[in-house]
Order: sequence, then C-alpha cells, then structure tokens
Amino acid sequence: MCPVITDVRLTPILIADAPLLNVGGVHQPYTPRLIVEVETDGGAVGLGETYGDHRYLSRATRLAWQLIGTPVAAVNAIRLLGAGESRLLDDNPVAGGLRGTLTSDKVRLSVISAFETAALDAYGRELGLPVHALLGGKVRDRVDYSGYLFYKWAEHPVPDAPADEWGEVLDPDGVVRLAEKFSAHGGFRSFKLKGGVRPPEEEIAAMLALAEAFPGHPLRLDPNGGWSPATATTVAERLTGVVEYLEDPTARLADMAELHRRTGMTLATNMIVTAVDEIRPAFDANAVQVMLSDHHFWGGLHATRDLAAVCHAYGKGVSMHSNTHLGISLAAMTQVAATVAHLDYACDTHYPWQAEDVVTEPLTFIDGAIEVTDAPGLGVELDRDALARLHERWQAMPALRDRDDVAAMRAADPGYRPPDTPKY
Amino acid sequence: MCPVITDVRLTPILIADAPLLNVGGVHQPYTPRLIVEVETDGGAVGLGETYGDHRYLSRATRLAWQLIGTPVAAVNAIRLLGAGESRLLDDNPVAGGLRGTLTSDKVRLSVISAFETAALDAYGRELGLPVHALLGGKVRDRVDYSGYLFYKWAEHPVPDAPADEWGEVLDPDGVVRLAEKFSAHGGFRSFKLKGGVRPPEEEIAAMLALAEAFPGHPLRLDPNGGWSPATATTVAERLTGVVEYLEDPTARLADMAELHRRTGMTLATNMIVTAVDEIRPAFDANAVQVMLSDHHFWGGLHATRDLAAVCHAYGKGVSMHSNTHLGISLAAMTQVAATVAHLDYACDTHYPWQAEDVVTEPLTFIDGAIEVTDAPGLGVELDRDALARLHERWQAMPALRDRDDVAAMRAADPGYRPPDTPKY
Ligand SMILES: [Mg+2]
Ligand SMILES: [Mg+2]
Repeated sequence: MCPVITDVRLTPILIADAPLLNVGGVHQPYTPRLIVEVETDGGAVGLGETYGDHRYLSRATRLAWQLIGTPVAAVNAIRLLGAGESRLLDDNPVAGGLRGTLTSDKVRLSVISAFETAALDAYGRELGLPVHALLGGKVRDRVDYSGYLFYKWAEHPVPDAPADEWGEVLDPDGVVRLAEKFSAHGGFRSFKLKGGVRPPEEEIAAMLALAEAFPGHPLRLDPNGGWSPATATTVAERLTGVVEYLEDPTARLADMAELHRRTGMTLATNMIVTAVDEIRPAFDANAVQVMLSDHHFWGGLHATRDLAAVCHAYGKGVSMHSNTHLGISLAAMTQVAATVAHLDYACDTHYPWQAEDVVTEPLTFIDGAIEVTDAPGLGVELDRDALARLHERWQAMPALRDRDDVAAMRAADPGYRPPDTPKY
Repeated sequence: MCPVITDVRLTPILIADAPLLNVGGVHQPYTPRLIVEVETDGGAVGLGETYGDHRYLSRATRLAWQLIGTPVAAVNAIRLLGAGESRLLDDNPVAGGLRGTLTSDKVRLSVISAFETAALDAYGRELGLPVHALLGGKVRDRVDYSGYLFYKWAEHPVPDAPADEWGEVLDPDGVVRLAEKFSAHGGFRSFKLKGGVRPPEEEIAAMLALAEAFPGHPLRLDPNGGWSPATATTVAERLTGVVEYLEDPTARLADMAELHRRTGMTLATNMIVTAVDEIRPAFDANAVQVMLSDHHFWGGLHATRDLAAVCHAYGKGVSMHSNTHLGISLAAMTQVAATVAHLDYACDTHYPWQAEDVVTEPLTFIDGAIEVTDAPGLGVELDRDALARLHERWQAMPALRDRDDVAAMRAADPGYRPPDTPKY
C-alpha cells in the first residue's frame, strides 16, 4: 500500500539575502520562501520549497487541501491539481520579470513543484530510498554547479540589514576576486556572472578578466534580457570563444533568434521559455540552444525530466537555472539533475549566498559539485527552530513578503525606476 | 537499500499466431518472443518481454550480464547500457520493415525495454507497489484499447499449424463481422483495421461498413506505408470524417507531410518515427500528428513517458502501437499508459489474437479497456510450465526463430515477393 498524505503544512519565511545587483534592481535584505511539509499516514514528513511571495502563498493555500488523501506516489496527478482553476483565473500575466512572463499557470506549477518534491521526499523516506531512485535512478554521483558571481554592494542601504562577508563587487577586478573566493571555498570550476548591471564594456572586461584568471574554465554571462539587440550583438562578438553561452542577452524571442543567426553565439534562457507552450515557438525559431531547466518553474522533478527529454529530442543543451533558494531546493535540484543523462552544463545555484537555511546540515560544495546522496528522500532534515525563527521574521516584516528588487533599489535611489527599454 | 539484480534469465519462446495478413505477407504459425526475468538479492523476480528474433536475442545475451549488480531502481542507467557498443556496431540498418528502418540502436533499445520493464517489475514487487507508482502514479484507472482487426485466412497454409476461431476475413462484410466479435467479447469501442492487404477501394468500403455498423465509434486504418502518395490521397479524401486518423498511409516522410498538407487528414505513425533522432525531422515537416508510442521501440516505460512529453510540447497526439505480444507486455503498456496525462487515443494491442500466454491469468478486456492494477509490480505472474513448453517449441523449430511474413506467404504462393514499390 502506498502511503497517503494526511496533513500539509505551509510555512512562509523570510531569509537573509545579500545586496546582489541585477538589471531590475537589488536584492532586499530578506527574501520570501515557502516551506512545504507533507505528512503521511505512515508518519513520514516530506519537504518542499518554492517562491514565498503572496501570489504563490495564496495559490498554495488554495491547493494544499487537495493533497489530503492523495497517495505520495501519485505525483502525476498532483501535477494536474488546479489546472482547470488556473485556466479560469484572470490574474493578468506579469510581463518582463526575471522569470519571463508570469502567468497564472506558472504560479500554479511553482506551487505544485514544492508539493511534488515534498511528496517524493515523503515517499522516499517511507521506502528508505533516495528521491533519485523514484525518478529512474542517478546516472552520476556528483552534480556540478557553477559559481554564481554577482555585482553587489558592500551592504544594504537600510539599517538593521543582515551583513555579508563578500564585500563590494563593482568592477572586473572585484569579479575576479569574487571568483577566487568561490574557487577557494567551494572549488567551483565554472562561473556565471549576473550581468545587465554595469555598462556592457565593463561586463565584457569582467568576462575577459575571468577568462584570463581561470583559463579553460567554462564561463557564462546573464543580463536578464537587459541589452538591446545591437548591444547583445556586440557582446556576443566580443565574447565568442570566451563564454560557453550567453544567457538571455536580449529579451525578445525574435531578437534572440536573430542574434544567434548572426553571431553563432550559443544562447541559453530561463526567460523566454519557462512553460510547455513556450517551447515550440522558441525552438522552431532557434532562439535558444540551451534550456535552463528549473523544477520550480516547470512543476517539479518529473516535469524537469520531461523538459530534458524534449531538449534531447530537439538537440538542445540542458543546464539548470536558480533563483534564491535554500537547502531543500538544492537537494531536489541535485537529485533530479543526477537522473538526467543529457545534462550538458554545470547547474546554477544561489546557494553559496545564503547564510541561513532550514535544514540541519547545509549542503557542501566540493570541487564545485554536490554529492548525490543515497539517503532516504531528499537526504535533508528540517531544522524546526530555524523554520520557526524565519517564520517569525516573516510575521514581523509584512513589507518584505513580496520580493521587490525595485523597492530595494529605491532605498538607495529614491527616484529609481527600472528601465522600460534596455538601458544599453 | 535498493535491491540489486543478482541473476538474469533469457528465455526465447515461440507462440502460436493466426494467419493475419499485412502489406508484407502473413503471420507465421508461430512467432518468436523473448521473456526476460531478473532476480534480486531480495528474492523478487521481475518480468520483461520483447522481440525474440535472433538479432534481439543475441544483443540481449551480450547485454544481460551488465545487469548483474545493478540496483533495480537504476533504470536510467540501464537505458544507457550498450549505447556505445551500438554506435560501433556495423550491422546495416534494415529499411522498409513494419517498424520502419531498423538500426542497431533500435535493436538495443528493444532489448533494454524488456530489461527496464523487468527491473521495474522486480522493484515494485520488492516495495509492494505497482509499476505505475514508480512512474509518478496513474492518472486513470482504466486504459482503453482499440479492437485490432485484420484481414486473415481461415487457416495457415501449412500442416500442423495452430488453428484459430476467428475464421476467414477477406472482405468488408468479414471485417464488420470480426468487429462484432471484438465488440461482443472484449467490448471494444474503437477499431483499427490492418490495411495494405486488399485493393484500396475494398479497404475504403470496409471502413465505411464499419462506420455504418458502429456509428460514432473511432476508427483507424493502417496499411503500413503500402500506398503510393496518389492512392493515399484518394483514401484520405474518401475517409475524411470517417476515420480519426490514417496510420502510415504512405512510407516516405515527405509524402506524409504533403498528404497532410493537401488533405488535412490526421496522420499517425509507428514507422517514420521510432527513435529520438527521427522525431524532429518528422515534427518539423508536420508529417505526423499522432505518435504511436511503443515501449519496445523506445527503450522502456520511462522512455515512453519521455516521448509523450515531447509530443505534448509539440502539440502531437499520443496513442500506442502494438506488435504481437503477450500478457507481460500488455501489463507494461497498461501501467505506463495509465501515467501519461495526455494520452489522446485508445491504444493498439494484438493481445486478443494470442491464444497462448506465459502469465498465469490472462488479462481481460472489459468495455475495451484493461483495468490498471495496483498489485505489486506489473501485477502478472509467470506460468513456468507454459514458459517451458513454449521454449521447447522454440528449440524444436529453428526455422521459425525469426519472424518472416514473406516466407510464410511463400508457403501459399511459392513465387511471392513483397512489393518493392507500393502495389496500389
Ligand atoms: Mg537567467
Ligand atoms: Mg502501424
């Protein structure tokens, strides 16, 4: 008999974050996440993690009760929860965010991803098997991650904000020093720079400096669609042979396709393709050559494997996107990545930036990789004291319950407005 | 701890078959299948079934030892077994068969499919869980199958051949009577006619007669690529609104694409797309609108789900192909079909034609459907006496160890040669 879900707990939390810069603004001192626990009639508790902003939390609340009575094995059915409701909802899609156009169904799938992960974790714990064994088993023992470099301020421009040890990074030299720290601490071998922040010439210089400091190490640059087609073309030409790919250099599908056609640069995305119905137009136009999968976007670990299958059939490379996340999601990313035969690139992760976590033992990078655990479930344990503390912070700070990089930027620059069209 | 495979048994058998006609010839009195058993250190035995012809048997023999010591959960790794060897092998692809061009890697994947099914069956038995629970769980409780109608002779044209109770079917009236038997005995609601046998006008007449006898019931016709483009166009025009799709009306991808473009007829295939690298050309040309998945072709149940994911992303319908098979494969088909959310059509199966089986309790069609069992593994038990008997037959009849519909036809028509180009 398959264990059945008897209880679901949703805990929104705020976690400390560093003042990391991107095209839209800067990270807030604290950022929301939602921790999901499902409990089974066998007494197992499974963990999931996803976006914690209001729109996700409210959707999770509406869907959670439907998990009660569901077998933990029934993740294909869990994936369909609320699909009809999603079509009826008329919450207008939000265009232009860091994860592309956000539709009602993408919000649903992000919630489902945490439900599915929690169900698989509980299932694995009940069976004494790792989650990868529920996905057909691992095909590698270690999953490589890239060192995720950011331009950043030394500190948040507001009082009582959490400090970090990484210092200011605002020029090519700072980027190289940051990469050296990532190399020294986690052994990261490939590096990604979050671009779209400094003038393109500076970001090109940063990539060239990285290439010189780390010869032969794979590099990538991601301005989150922040460049005009002309700027993107210039960057692509200057960085040919330097980066393994450019990530979302420009925002529109047609411009991505044209950029690849003209420059031959390999292009990756986590913006123009973040749902099933966006795959075909982008692939048909050859606007993307590498898909950055993300189980939070696509609806879970099975959905991530489905995406990888589509990429394999269409000759597209597979890598993995990351948003700010904790150890539960890193464990889930590692488990599913271990099962994808055609994983062509190191995965992205924000994890080294997170000083707080809700797991008792933070995961450790060795040589830039996470070992694929064979422990039951996801192999992480919930730190209930930490969860309670971070939830108390969420209760105490209503103003930060929705991530808002623009608002955070206004704390330093009251007149700040994110650019409607590319600044560069 | 995950159970590990400690033993593998391969048993080639010959099963009685009826004199069913197709574009290439006629079924032999006996047809080969390969039964795979994997045994685990926990004492569970898992079952798989695939093609039994010499080329499959020899590949299975070469690959089987690699299963020893493999965890039953490691089906993603099992799928990769022999992939390198497959690229090195220079056994020339065989074009024009009933399953399309047969490459070395397709043979490998057909063997892998039985290994994977057996591993999942063993895994499920160890855990006390149905195979569908290892694939994310079922999303339906019954899987619909179509009644698979054939033109056929009353008996094989050789002495000592097995008899069948279905009688001769050589004209539209016979086809309708056969459908009535399928309706009466298994409750089948949709019907497929294996075409490419009689002149197209007769096969059109048969479909019109079926439509009249079973109004509103989905119908399909499959000449296995046996028509010229001109004939296919005529049939498509005549059967628009009568059939839900035509299956492989003509053999070449470009002709399929042109046929769809000109007539709008929905086209299905299990011939022009039977491997991952064949998907893209066919989809890009819109040569096919419905993919007939087959876990024997694609490398197992996970691979079948992968194919369904690709179809979903590209707006292609999903149905399921069948070759002659026994209860192990029908159980496997049913388990995986139950997990595919976007299964759009009733699946094909030859099962009603098989009077012999290696399972203790043959599966039963009710209202044309098989109930999705929640019994451990595939939910079928091996009949060792039957297996031994059918293996003895295999030992006694070396001439029938490779299916050869042409040779079988020559028993009736010594000068028979299959057409090099479409007869119609
Ligand atoms: Mg990105
Ligand atoms: Mg066919």
